[in-house]
Amino acid sequence: MFNAPHPLTYLDAIHAFLKEDWGTQDWTTLSVPDRPMTATVVAKADLVLAGLPMAAEVLRAVDPALEVHLLPRDGDHLAPGRGVLRVVGSCRSILMAERVMLNLLQRLSGTATLTRAFVDAVAGTGARILDTRKTTPGLKLLEKYAVRCGGGVNHRLTLGDGVLLKENHIAAAGGIPEAVAGARRTAPNLLRIEVEVETLEQLAQCFTLADVDGVLLDNMGVEMMREAVAMRQAAGSRIFLEASGNLTLDRARAVAETGVDFLSVGALTHSAPAADMSLRLS
Amino acid sequence: MFNAPHPLTYLDAIHAFLKEDWGTQDWTTLSVPDRPMTATVVAKADLVLAGLPMAAEVLRAVDPALEVHLLPRDGDHLAPGRGVLRVVGSCRSILMAERVMLNLLQRLSGTATLTRAFVDAVAGTGARILDTRKTTPGLKLLEKYAVRCGGGVNHRLTLGDGVLLKENHIAAAGGIPEAVAGARRTAPNLLRIEVEVETLEQLAQCFTLADVDGVLLDNMGVEMMREAVAMRQAAGSRIFLEASGNLTLDRARAVAETGVDFLSVGALTHSAPAADMSLRLS
Amino acid sequence: MFNAPHPLTYLDAIHAFLKEDWGTQDWTTLSVPDRPMTATVVAKADLVLAGLPMAAEVLRAVDPALEVHLLPRDGDHLAPGRGVLRVVGSCRSILMAERVMLNLLQRLSGTATLTRAFVDAVAGTGARILDTRKTTPGLKLLEKYAVRCGGGVNHRLTLGDGVLLKENHIAAAGGIPEAVAGARRTAPNLLRIEVEVETLEQLAQCFTLADVDGVLLDNMGVEMMREAVAMRQAAGSRIFLEASGNLTLDRARAVAETGVDFLSVGALTHSAPAADMSLRLS
Amino acid sequence: MFNAPHPLTYLDAIHAFLKEDWGTQDWTTLSVPDRPMTATVVAKADLVLAGLPMAAEVLRAVDPALEVHLLPRDGDHLAPGRGVLRVVGSCRSILMAERVMLNLLQRLSGTATLTRAFVDAVAGTGARILDTRKTTPGLKLLEKYAVRCGGGVNHRLTLGDGVLLKENHIAAAGGIPEAVAGARRTAPNLLRIEVEVETLEQLAQCFTLADVDGVLLDNMGVEMMREAVAMRQAAGSRIFLEASGNLTLDRARAVAETGVDFLSVGALTHSAPAADMSLRLS
Amino acid sequence: MFNAPHPLTYLDAIHAFLKEDWGTQDWTTLSVPDRPMTATVVAKADLVLAGLPMAAEVLRAVDPALEVHLLPRDGDHLAPGRGVLRVVGSCRSILMAERVMLNLLQRLSGTATLTRAFVDAVAGTGARILDTRKTTPGLKLLEKYAVRCGGGVNHRLTLGDGVLLKENHIAAAGGIPEAVAGARRTAPNLLRIEVEVETLEQLAQCFTLADVDGVLLDNMGVEMMREAVAMRQAAGSRIFLEASGNLTLDRARAVAETGVDFLSVGALTHSAPAADMSLRLS
Amino acid sequence: MFNAPHPLTYLDAIHAFLKEDWGTQDWTTLSVPDRPMTATVVAKADLVLAGLPMAAEVLRAVDPALEVHLLPRDGDHLAPGRGVLRVVGSCRSILMAERVMLNLLQRLSGTATLTRAFVDAVAGTGARILDTRKTTPGLKLLEKYAVRCGGGVNHRLTLGDGVLLKENHIAAAGGIPEAVAGARRTAPNLLRIEVEVETLEQLAQCFTLADVDGVLLDNMGVEMMREAVAMRQAAGSRIFLEASGNLTLDRARAVAETGVDFLSVGALTHSAPAADMSLRLS
Repeated sequence: MFNAPHPLTYLDAIHAFLKEDWGTQDWTTLSVPDRPMTATVVAKADLVLAGLPMAAEVLRAVDPALEVHLLPRDGDHLAPGRGVLRVVGSCRSILMAERVMLNLLQRLSGTATLTRAFVDAVAGTGARILDTRKTTPGLKLLEKYAVRCGGGVNHRLTLGDGVLLKENHIAAAGGIPEAVAGARRTAPNLLRIEVEVETLEQLAQCFTLADVDGVLLDNMGVEMMREAVAMRQAAGSRIFLEASGNLTLDRARAVAETGVDFLSVGALTHSAPAADMSLRLS
Repeated sequence: MFNAPHPLTYLDAIHAFLKEDWGTQDWTTLSVPDRPMTATVVAKADLVLAGLPMAAEVLRAVDPALEVHLLPRDGDHLAPGRGVLRVVGSCRSILMAERVMLNLLQRLSGTATLTRAFVDAVAGTGARILDTRKTTPGLKLLEKYAVRCGGGVNHRLTLGDGVLLKENHIAAAGGIPEAVAGARRTAPNLLRIEVEVETLEQLAQCFTLADVDGVLLDNMGVEMMREAVAMRQAAGSRIFLEASGNLTLDRARAVAETGVDFLSVGALTHSAPAADMSLRLS
Repeated sequence: MFNAPHPLTYLDAIHAFLKEDWGTQDWTTLSVPDRPMTATVVAKADLVLAGLPMAAEVLRAVDPALEVHLLPRDGDHLAPGRGVLRVVGSCRSILMAERVMLNLLQRLSGTATLTRAFVDAVAGTGARILDTRKTTPGLKLLEKYAVRCGGGVNHRLTLGDGVLLKENHIAAAGGIPEAVAGARRTAPNLLRIEVEVETLEQLAQCFTLADVDGVLLDNMGVEMMREAVAMRQAAGSRIFLEASGNLTLDRARAVAETGVDFLSVGALTHSAPAADMSLRLS
Repeated sequence: MFNAPHPLTYLDAIHAFLKEDWGTQDWTTLSVPDRPMTATVVAKADLVLAGLPMAAEVLRAVDPALEVHLLPRDGDHLAPGRGVLRVVGSCRSILMAERVMLNLLQRLSGTATLTRAFVDAVAGTGARILDTRKTTPGLKLLEKYAVRCGGGVNHRLTLGDGVLLKENHIAAAGGIPEAVAGARRTAPNLLRIEVEVETLEQLAQCFTLADVDGVLLDNMGVEMMREAVAMRQAAGSRIFLEASGNLTLDRARAVAETGVDFLSVGALTHSAPAADMSLRLS
Repeated sequence: MFNAPHPLTYLDAIHAFLKEDWGTQDWTTLSVPDRPMTATVVAKADLVLAGLPMAAEVLRAVDPALEVHLLPRDGDHLAPGRGVLRVVGSCRSILMAERVMLNLLQRLSGTATLTRAFVDAVAGTGARILDTRKTTPGLKLLEKYAVRCGGGVNHRLTLGDGVLLKENHIAAAGGIPEAVAGARRTAPNLLRIEVEVETLEQLAQCFTLADVDGVLLDNMGVEMMREAVAMRQAAGSRIFLEASGNLTLDRARAVAETGVDFLSVGALTHSAPAADMSLRLS
Repeated sequence: MFNAPHPLTYLDAIHAFLKEDWGTQDWTTLSVPDRPMTATVVAKADLVLAGLPMAAEVLRAVDPALEVHLLPRDGDHLAPGRGVLRVVGSCRSILMAERVMLNLLQRLSGTATLTRAFVDAVAGTGARILDTRKTTPGLKLLEKYAVRCGGGVNHRLTLGDGVLLKENHIAAAGGIPEAVAGARRTAPNLLRIEVEVETLEQLAQCFTLADVDGVLLDNMGVEMMREAVAMRQAAGSRIFLEASGNLTLDRARAVAETGVDFLSVGALTHSAPAADMSLRLS
């Protein structure tokens, strides 16, 4: 429903995560007798769930004989005490999978939960919440998915799937028109071009350029953003406007009410606290 | 100084991170002319630095011709505005390295900064701050290093370098003595054995077992922990005591003052917000 | 100049190609004494060059002590007999690198040469030559680069950097408007949407949809394409038009003269014959 | 029947090809609802089939629940319109597998088809068609298999499974006898030795050397090759003769009729156009 | 029972071993018709078995349809002629798996067999047999397992799971007390510290240091070791004593009878001859 | 001189070996101060050296700043006390490289030393010593090189570079002539065919088949082998004869004196004890 990545794109990573966690062997678990066990991952706080398919793949990688029951679905809002998944099978297998499974679930749900908070904060304004490239190295595809589970929209996933001309690029090209022309010549045909601006003069310049698809308003105040939206209307432009920089939860609604189309929030992926969960014996 | 991991252990990861960030090609950067550039990574908030050797390897991986000057050292406390590293060379190379370099530096410094806050909170009590296995999948060695940069001590890095008998292991073994005996039989000779306890009765039992090297006091109140410390003294035991569970910055000093040896804090690696930094043209 | 991929994105592949070619050991070369040697890669037919940086990386991977002189540049048109690169050093190293280096150079130059033929065929019409996803498995980034060396423009490189709604997608969505709306909801914000149409009725429908950025005219005759261009003008639309299907060199100019913006040619990457080159002792 | 490579030797490559084609995610396919679908790969031109087991592995890698029916067998000659394989299952899975599956099938069948054309051209002469090491980097094992499907015979697959002393080796060794002696000393015991010659004098020299197993006649005219065959008969030699260089389809029969044992044709793998196929909804 | 490593930790290695053995294709096996076959791996000498799960994974990797019957269990002592495993299925699959399966079984059983000989030699003395880090590169986890199958105990598996201060470390630190203090500061909390000593003076020093958990007696004579044990008793120390250096089977019992806790034997993994086995048609 | 494998073919393995040995971090070495150090690898027993280039690559992989002096050359016979290589540089780097470097050197020199013993045992007879495919999984190319350093000759390295028809193949094919004909049809053209025989009747049959290049005499007694050689002479055959099975050092000369061309000895790679070496501070 939120377009989870294909397992082929993250299964090698899951294997690597397990080996990273195990080191050589799990001496603790190997020192106790194996026996059947039923365990449940439980939410210990309010959270928006993300990562169930990945959690299931972790369990399958450790032991394909484990029986796994996914209780809710990614994107669901869970109250404390709600079960997330139940697993039945070898106690050793479950204990060897536990930490990596929880580390993934908690991190992805942390991102989904924070995203939902932003989405709720701007509800009704028409603005949407975007992520950034400030993702955890190695987890980009999964975190981008977690943002979608939280109701957010993905900005470009890589440098290859979109053009965003920032201050440095514009300086190197010698100006916005030159940078935009260069980008249109260089980028594959199905990529849009977005330009980062710091002043309304720069914004006005963008409205005159046919190849600009969107503008990132960098670190502007609310008043200035409102003016930017008004300028767009006056220009009859279809360019989308993205607010960026210093977008805290407190400030999000005011920004959204200026009429911008998107708020992009780096914190969704670089600073979301882990959602609290634990594995309980049932 | 903080025993950074050998580059061989993370260089493949850095290559993967760059490719993950680039996707196919960086069309934006490729659309502007290349030229020499000097840029500086700058702290934008108070932080404890971690990740400089990794940042330098990111730059080298993108372009060995870049000239890199590391300004402070990992473990240093930086005020906002302080430079972190300066890089001179091809503008294209720097822009292609920027995001991955910052993502690593900000994440690792975030962990070091939070660790330092805990270390400072317990200063003078003799207690030390431990991390946990709640690390970011794929970044364990680097995050463990960041904890050291912040003044913390590493708990086991993997399941292979220490025995920690938790509730589930003890239940499966049929009791603490059985679990400890099994672990001593199973684990390689140079590994210590730690037992998680939830009651003082369990703790008392541990004092009677020669093979117990440490005890994790799980989610106990401050009063109970003080009693645990007193019991150890009465027993003349050398077992170390580790407080664990719900250890917020607010509560840390009170816990440390009970006389426990260690406080283990999952948040160091699972919920530290990124330290704020950016790349500025000099 | 044609934005060659960063070596980090293909160096592992080059190592794999060499090992694939060597098998265990190059017994033939090992059976002769090593000695200094100068050799030149020479064009044996008219061709447009592509692959020089990759050829140089092959030589460096085999022996960093080899001295390599690149004679012309990628994108240059070479007459038979022209030198491509000269290499000086260990005869064993050169012989062990020869076949992989030539296989890459000949294949990439083959694509560049065929691309240039199409570009020349449509010269002056304003139409540009696009490639497709019909690339050699494992060589996509390099072949896309070869297309650029030949003067072509890249269509999307992967399924992740552009939306192209084909017949099957439209059928599954229940119609063009539904498919386009779904794609706009699903795809990251910086991706354009292109729609494949087989009739002019479908094309007319596209002109009414704000989120359609381009239309692929599938297997249409020249007359029908001319009409499509006229319809666009009448509609005052900025949508780009791409001709696709059965575009031979013979037919290319007539298609281009209809006024379409792009001709996409699968043969550039799936059926270009290798450009003829060989390694000669100088 | 044609000794397809073991899947273990190419499964990692198939996974890499899929990831290369997908980039991040297949936004187009993810934007339409999933539903059951039946599709058939159909030949659109006369062709000799190669690659069915690989195509089946592509489908299995994307979705093990897909039901795959292989209709003909590799090595079969198909007329336009003939079905190649039918697949039933998730529409999304099929669309995500389509391009890589077709790219492999078309490329391998292209090689098999061209090989068969050469085999047919020399039918009845006793000569056989050999491939070369001029294969696509990364696809050697599969292309060598395609040559077998077309009725050809594999020359050495790697530098490790045969000795072929060329002009440069002979020069470095100081003559044919020296080169052959060195090779016999160096190469593992189960490898044969072939010598490339450009003159009949060199050929005569080979007949005197017990360790020469075969001779490659490099770029000789038909008349000269006929003489070479006569010389062999006169010498009572069992050495095999391989014609090489500039062997077009037009010229193949005349060359074969000289009595040489093999014709080696680089074009089989470096310049075969893709066989035309497409995926149709049934 | 002997805590075999999880297949995830060695399955990639098994795939690599098979490809290493196959090279390109197994032409010999491919040249004979396939047919059902039953074969048995048979012990041809007295041996202690190790490697059955790995052997089964080799067979499964080559052909999941093979039916595999494990006859005894790892750790069992087998007389010549005893069956080890029986496999039923495709003759081609079995022949392609044979060599790698036997190479692993014979090598691991060789280590288990030699370990058992040492264990038997010291039976009744209370001493136990330790391995070392002198393992075969690439096979460490499997060889450590083989040692356990033979009744031995693992010393540290890697440099990360234990501290062993040797002569060079002590010299660099400036003495045993300095080295031990540094190690305790540096190593994670659950690792023990062992010190290598060459004299009884050094040993005496170790008894005074609270952080020393064990002592390696390097290359001492039996008399000296007996004295070391007496000194430990006199000191009332719980430090374990490990004899190391030049421990042949002949000498093992005398060493064990000195009262040391462990004998560490590099030969278990660096010089154990392969256990003799072969594959027989049943 | 002995045709060491190209570093590209084993460098990834060396990196993996180091990581396998290190686990997470080398806490022991990290706990002592770094300082310059000079160390020498010294032979502690009579041995034939093999593995110097690999040892040098281990040191370079750990620290490119280490200065490495190779003292003798691979293939040299060393007396106890002779230096093998001297390394100057960071004490930490040397200690982190020590174990893997020695493990490789000792193992490869062990094989070279045992090979030389066999070569010496048959000196003057004209017979040569062959290895087998009974190599250590993961180390095949290096062990085959060690055999060459000891004066041995490589049998096929993989199943892809030679045909050896064994009992099972012959049974499956229905007889020696059928098996040989099938192999000649199947195998690439530059591979020889060897047939394993257990009786002189089978041998006689081989002499009648033009496509048999060699015969492996399986587990025959000396008398029978002498007869085999006589039969070959009588038949005027050029087929080579290889003695195999149970070839101990004691028996080798008698076997060689029968006139066979080769003795193949599995023990060279499956049971050679490690050559004794250690690292000494100079």
